[in-house]
Amino acid sequence: MLGYAFMGKAHSNAYKTLAYMVWPPPYLPRLVAIAGRREQAVAEAAARYGFESHATDWARLIEDERVELFDNSGPNDLHAEPSVAAARAGKHVLCEKPLGRDAAESHDTWRAVEDAGVKHMCAFNYRFVPAVRLAREMLAAGDLGELFHFRARYLQDWGPTTERRWRFDKRAAGSGAVGDLGAHVVDLARYLVGEIDSVSAVVTTFQAEREVDDAFEAALRFSNGAVGTLEASRFCAGRRNSLTFEVNGSRGSIAFDLERLNELQVYLSDSTPGARAQGFRTVIVSEADHPFWRWWWPHGHVIGWEHTFVHEIAHLLTAIREDVDVGPHGATFEDGYRAAEVCDAILRSGESGRREEVDYRA
Amino acid sequence: MLGYAFMGKAHSNAYKTLAYMVWPPPYLPRLVAIAGRREQAVAEAAARYGFESHATDWARLIEDERVELFDNSGPNDLHAEPSVAAARAGKHVLCEKPLGRDAAESHDTWRAVEDAGVKHMCAFNYRFVPAVRLAREMLAAGDLGELFHFRARYLQDWGPTTERRWRFDKRAAGSGAVGDLGAHVVDLARYLVGEIDSVSAVVTTFQAEREVDDAFEAALRFSNGAVGTLEASRFCAGRRNSLTFEVNGSRGSIAFDLERLNELQVYLSDSTPGARAQGFRTVIVSEADHPFWRWWWPHGHVIGWEHTFVHEIAHLLTAIREDVDVGPHGATFEDGYRAAEVCDAILRSGESGRREEVDYRA
Amino acid sequence: MLGYAFMGKAHSNAYKTLAYMVWPPPYLPRLVAIAGRREQAVAEAAARYGFESHATDWARLIEDERVELFDNSGPNDLHAEPSVAAARAGKHVLCEKPLGRDAAESHDTWRAVEDAGVKHMCAFNYRFVPAVRLAREMLAAGDLGELFHFRARYLQDWGPTTERRWRFDKRAAGSGAVGDLGAHVVDLARYLVGEIDSVSAVVTTFQAEREVDDAFEAALRFSNGAVGTLEASRFCAGRRNSLTFEVNGSRGSIAFDLERLNELQVYLSDSTPGARAQGFRTVIVSEADHPFWRWWWPHGHVIGWEHTFVHEIAHLLTAIREDVDVGPHGATFEDGYRAAEVCDAILRSGESGRREEVDYRA
Amino acid sequence: MLGYAFMGKAHSNAYKTLAYMVWPPPYLPRLVAIAGRREQAVAEAAARYGFESHATDWARLIEDERVELFDNSGPNDLHAEPSVAAARAGKHVLCEKPLGRDAAESHDTWRAVEDAGVKHMCAFNYRFVPAVRLAREMLAAGDLGELFHFRARYLQDWGPTTERRWRFDKRAAGSGAVGDLGAHVVDLARYLVGEIDSVSAVVTTFQAEREVDDAFEAALRFSNGAVGTLEASRFCAGRRNSLTFEVNGSRGSIAFDLERLNELQVYLSDSTPGARAQGFRTVIVSEADHPFWRWWWPHGHVIGWEHTFVHEIAHLLTAIREDVDVGPHGATFEDGYRAAEVCDAILRSGESGRREEVDYRA
Repeated sequence: MLGYAFMGKAHSNAYKTLAYMVWPPPYLPRLVAIAGRREQAVAEAAARYGFESHATDWARLIEDERVELFDNSGPNDLHAEPSVAAARAGKHVLCEKPLGRDAAESHDTWRAVEDAGVKHMCAFNYRFVPAVRLAREMLAAGDLGELFHFRARYLQDWGPTTERRWRFDKRAAGSGAVGDLGAHVVDLARYLVGEIDSVSAVVTTFQAEREVDDAFEAALRFSNGAVGTLEASRFCAGRRNSLTFEVNGSRGSIAFDLERLNELQVYLSDSTPGARAQGFRTVIVSEADHPFWRWWWPHGHVIGWEHTFVHEIAHLLTAIREDVDVGPHGATFEDGYRAAEVCDAILRSGESGRREEVDYRA
Repeated sequence: MLGYAFMGKAHSNAYKTLAYMVWPPPYLPRLVAIAGRREQAVAEAAARYGFESHATDWARLIEDERVELFDNSGPNDLHAEPSVAAARAGKHVLCEKPLGRDAAESHDTWRAVEDAGVKHMCAFNYRFVPAVRLAREMLAAGDLGELFHFRARYLQDWGPTTERRWRFDKRAAGSGAVGDLGAHVVDLARYLVGEIDSVSAVVTTFQAEREVDDAFEAALRFSNGAVGTLEASRFCAGRRNSLTFEVNGSRGSIAFDLERLNELQVYLSDSTPGARAQGFRTVIVSEADHPFWRWWWPHGHVIGWEHTFVHEIAHLLTAIREDVDVGPHGATFEDGYRAAEVCDAILRSGESGRREEVDYRA
Repeated sequence: MLGYAFMGKAHSNAYKTLAYMVWPPPYLPRLVAIAGRREQAVAEAAARYGFESHATDWARLIEDERVELFDNSGPNDLHAEPSVAAARAGKHVLCEKPLGRDAAESHDTWRAVEDAGVKHMCAFNYRFVPAVRLAREMLAAGDLGELFHFRARYLQDWGPTTERRWRFDKRAAGSGAVGDLGAHVVDLARYLVGEIDSVSAVVTTFQAEREVDDAFEAALRFSNGAVGTLEASRFCAGRRNSLTFEVNGSRGSIAFDLERLNELQVYLSDSTPGARAQGFRTVIVSEADHPFWRWWWPHGHVIGWEHTFVHEIAHLLTAIREDVDVGPHGATFEDGYRAAEVCDAILRSGESGRREEVDYRA
Repeated sequence: MLGYAFMGKAHSNAYKTLAYMVWPPPYLPRLVAIAGRREQAVAEAAARYGFESHATDWARLIEDERVELFDNSGPNDLHAEPSVAAARAGKHVLCEKPLGRDAAESHDTWRAVEDAGVKHMCAFNYRFVPAVRLAREMLAAGDLGELFHFRARYLQDWGPTTERRWRFDKRAAGSGAVGDLGAHVVDLARYLVGEIDSVSAVVTTFQAEREVDDAFEAALRFSNGAVGTLEASRFCAGRRNSLTFEVNGSRGSIAFDLERLNELQVYLSDSTPGARAQGFRTVIVSEADHPFWRWWWPHGHVIGWEHTFVHEIAHLLTAIREDVDVGPHGATFEDGYRAAEVCDAILRSGESGRREEVDYRA
C-alpha cells in the first residue's frame, strides 16, 4: 500500500475486516508492506494497521515479489507513475480517485495499466454503498422506466480555512472540489444513468489566494436524453459530508443521502396495493438477500461509511480470484478516465462560458 | 355560537369558508348570533367574524328562533347546560371537546341531547385530517391485518407558566392535560383501533400549586387484543403541537404527526413490485379522489390545521341535510362520553395505582 | 377579478378570509365583479365566491367605477392588456405570475402600469410563506454572513399527459416549466440572495409534440459572487409540488421545502450554548411575534398553501391604504419583469449553448 | 469467548478492529480461545475470527491461564454460571445482556463476580453510541434543566414466525421482548435519567403457543419526579431495529433513533443567536473532539451499529489497564442486576394489574 493517511487507514481496515465479514473470503489478504514519505509515521502506521514491513520509497513495493496487489492510497500526484509501474511489474492495481490530475494523465494511466494485462480498479467506493447498489439494480431492471433527470451534489464545509493542505495545491491535486468531490458524483451519474454528453458549468474559487476551485455548478445532458445538475462545494456550512442524488423516471424516482447511507428513498408510480397510499418509501437497505448485506448483521443494524471499502475490496479480490471483469459494478481505470473527461469539461466550460461536449477517447 | 376565543375563531372561519371550498355546500350557513361574557369583546368578534348579532347571555341564542344549529365553542364548564338547553329547544348541537368535565357530566349531556332527537357532534376535529381519514379507511379495509399496537402522544410545551388560565382551573376545566390533550388521542384510539378495555396510568402535576394534571402516561388494552401507550403533556420543550400516533398490524404499519398533517407514513408488508424496496412511505395525502381533497387544491398544495374544522362542519351540515348518522366518521356525543370514560379511568388509575377497567354505560 | 379557475379561487378565498385573520384589516374588500369567458361558469363562480356581479368581457371591469383594485388571475396571455387597461383607468393592479409571456411583454406591462401611477404587485406568493419571510429576515440581517450558494428546484409530476391544457400552448403560456415553475424560483433567488448576472442552461422537452419546455437545468452567477443551480420540471414522479431551496453562507445555511411549508431548516455555525450540538434545526415557523403569524393560531397549529395569498393580499391592501411601497417584500411589476429577463436568458442559453448575461432595462 | 453467533461475531470483530481504530489501544487483544457447543461450527468461527483455539466446553476457557478476560456472548441461560466461574478464576468478565434470566439470578451473578474482585461489565452497548454519550453528557451538565419525561421504545418486526428459536424458550431466555429489547431501554432510562421507582405495565403474547412475552407497554415513575413510558415489541411491521427515545426537560429536549444512530435531535430553549429560529437540531455526532470520534473518520463520515462494541471493549480494556471504575459510562454487573429488577417489576405488574415498586437489593 502506498499512503497511510485518511485513505490508507480506510483501505487497511477493509483488508483486515474482510475475513470477518465475507466468509469464506475470496482471499485472506496478507499486508506485506506500506510506503510513505515520513519514516516515523509510516513505521507507526505499519505497526497499527498490521503491515509486515514499511518503506519510504514506493518503488520498494514494486520490486517486492510478495506484493500481488498494489493499493495506491497516495495523493493525486502519486497516482499515475506508481500505478503504472506496479502494473508493469505484473501487480493488480487499486487506485484512489481521481485517477489522475486531469483527463490526459488519467488516459495515459488507464492505457498503460490496461496494456499491462492486470486487473485495475479506481476506488469510487460509493458504488459499494448497499443503497446505491439497490438503486443501480432497480435502474438496470427498468423499474423507473425512461429516465428524465439526475441531480447530485456533494457538499462539505471545511473550505473556509487558511490551513495549507495538499488538496489546495494545484500541482499535487490537479483541481479542487471538481476532482475531489465532483469526481464522485460524476461517477455515480455514469454508473446510474449513463454516459454524459455535455456540460454547462460555473466554476468558482471563493478564497482569493487559493489555486484550485472551491465549488462548481453544472447543467448536463446525458446520451439517453436525461438532463440534470451536478454540483460540488467545500463551502456549505453545516453540510459535513452531504452527497445526495435523485433520479426521476417515467415510472418512479429514487433519492439518496450519504449521511443516511443505510436508507434509499424510492417512489414507484404504480405499486399496489394501497393505490391511494403512494409516496416516497424510506427503505432501510439491510435485507438478508442484498448482495452485500448477507455478510453483516440482522435487518436494521446499520453499517457505516468505512464498509464501502470492505465491499469494494471484496469485489476486487473476487474479480482477481475468478478472473472476471471488475465492471460493471467496480469502476475500472477506464471509468476513472471517463470521469476525468467530464471533470475536465466542467473546468473548460467554467473558463469558456460555453456548453462543452465530452469526448471520450478509446 | 357560544364563545369567541380560540375555538370560536376556528369555527367561525370554517362556516365562512365552507361555500368557497365545498361546492355546492350542504347549506349556506347564516351566522345569526354569537354569545360571550364580555360585551365589548363579543361585539368586536361579531363584527370581525360576520355574525348578525351578539349577546352576553347564551340563553338569548336558545330563544332565538333563527338559530337552527347551536355551536358550543365555550369553555368546558359551559358545555353541558347550554348544549342540553339548545337541544331541548330543537336545535342541532356541535360541542367542543371534552364533552363534559368528567364522565358523569358527559353521560348526562349525551343522554339529554340524544333524547331531544337532534343531531349532535363532539368536535374531535382531528378525525377530519385527510391523513387520519386515510388511516381510518385503510384500517377499516383491513390493509394492516390484525392489529397489535397503538401508541399516541399529544405533547405541547406551554405548561411551565405562572399565568392564570381557565385551563388550570379545576372547576372550569375538569382536568388538565387529560381532558384537553388526552381526550384527542383517546378519541383517535377509539376511531382507529376500537374500544379501550383498561388503562394503567401515571398522572402527574409538575407545577406544585396547580389544581389540574400537567401530564399522564398510560399503558392500555383494547377489546380486540391490541395493546399500546397513550400520553399527553404540556411540559415537552420544543414540542409545539405534537400529536403523533402509530398503529402496527400483522400486514403493515401507519404513523402520523400533526405538525406534518398533510403526510401519512404507511408501511405495507407485501406490496409489489419492488419487493426489496420495502419501507415506510411518506404519503402526501392530497389526492384528487380523497373525500376531503376534491374541495381544495391540486395535489401537493398542502392545507393547514384550521381546515379540519371546514371538513367537520361540512360533515355535520351534510348529516343534518340528508338526515343521516353523524357517525362513524363524525364523533357523536356518545363518542364524547366514551372518551370521557377513558379519561376518568386514566385519572382513577393514577390515583389507585391499579389497572382500571373502562365501563361504558348505555 | 379576471379569472375564476385555480388562481381565481385562491385569490377569492383570500379576500373573503382576510377580515377573519387580519384584524383590523387594512380594508374590508367588497367583491364587486368577476370576469371570465364562459357565462355559465363565471356565474357559478360569482355565486360561490360571493361576487356581486359577473361579466364575460373583462373590459366591463375596467369600466366599472366601483372597482378600485383589479385582480388579474387569468391565463398568461391575458396578463398584459387587461392589467395595463386597468391601471390606465386608475385601478391598482395585482397580476398573477409570470407577468408576461416574455421579457419584452413584461417590460411593456411594467412601464405602462408604473407610468399610470397606481400600486402594482406581481403575485409571487411564496414570498409570503412565513418560513420564507424568516429566511429573508435572517439573510437581510446578515445571520448567514457572506453568501456562497443558492440552489433551488421546483418539481412537479403532471407533465406526462396527453391532455390539452393552455399551459402547453406556446401562444397562451409563453413558455412551459420556465415561466410556470421557474419564475417562482427565479423570484425567490432575487428576493433572498440578490440580482442574477448570468445563466448557463439546458432546456428540454421530453414529450415530442409539445410546444413548450418540460424542464430546465441552469447554473448561475449572482452579482454578489454567489453561485448556484436553478431547476424546474414537470416530469419528476412523486414530486407533487416540491419547491425546495438552500442557501449556504460563511456563517450558516438555510433550507426550505414547500411541501413542509411551516418548517425552515436553519444551521448557524457559532450558536451557543451547546457548542458540540450543532446541526440543522427544524424550525416550525409559527411564533407569535412573526409578522404573519399573529393573525393565525397558537404555536404549532400549522397553516396551508392557500394562506400565502391571504398574506399577500393583506400586504398589498396595507400598501394601498398607507400609500407606501409594495416592495421589498411584495414583488412589484418591476420584479415581475426582472424575473422574466432571467427566464428569457435561461431559454436563450438553452438555444445558444452559451452562458447568457442577464441585462435589466430601466 | 463463549458463543460464536450474532454477538460472538460482533464482539470478535471489535477486538480485531480495536487497534485500527484506537491508537494506541489500551491493550492489543490476543484472541486465545472460543467455546461453543457444536464442534464444527466453533472450529470454523475460530478460523474466521482469528482465535488461536476452540473448545466445545466453556470450562476449558476457565482453566486456560492465558485467558485474562472472559467474554460471555452465549445465550441467556449460560450467563450466570460461566461468568461466575470465570471471575472466581480471576478473569475479568464481559457478559452480554440480560445479565440473568431474572433479577434473582442477576443479583447472584453480580454479587459473586463483585466478590471475586475482578472488573465486570454488562454489554449494554447502546451506551456507547456517540449520540447517546452526547445525550448523557448534556443531561449530566444540566443542559436540559429539570427532567419531566422519558419515553423509549424498542420495536422490531420478526416476532410473527413459527420458527423455533432459543429466544422463544422460557428456560433459555427467561423472558421475551422484556429481557431482550426491554432491558436495553431500561438501561438507557437509568443511564440518562436516573433510577426507576415504579412501573404500571401491560405484558402480552400475541402468538398463542409462545412461552414468552411478545411485547410490553409500561408507564413509569423515576426517583427524580420524571415520568414516562417504556415499550418493546417484536410485532411492529416495518420497524427493523427501531430503538427510539426522547427526554424532555425544563430547558430543552433530546431525541434519538437507533436506525439513524449518527444523529441526535437536540432542542435547547434559550440558545442564541437567532432567537426566533428555535427548533430541534439534527446533530450529526461525529465531531473531532467527541470521546469516541477521534478514532474514526472526518466529520460526517458515519459509523455503524457494530462500532458500539469497539467503543465498549476499548472502554473496558482501559478500565482494566488503568484499574479504574467501569462506571458510570460502562454498565457494571450491578447495572445489569438493576435493569433486571425493573424488567421483573414490568412482568409482575403485567400479572398483578398493579403499579409495582422496584426494590433494589444491595
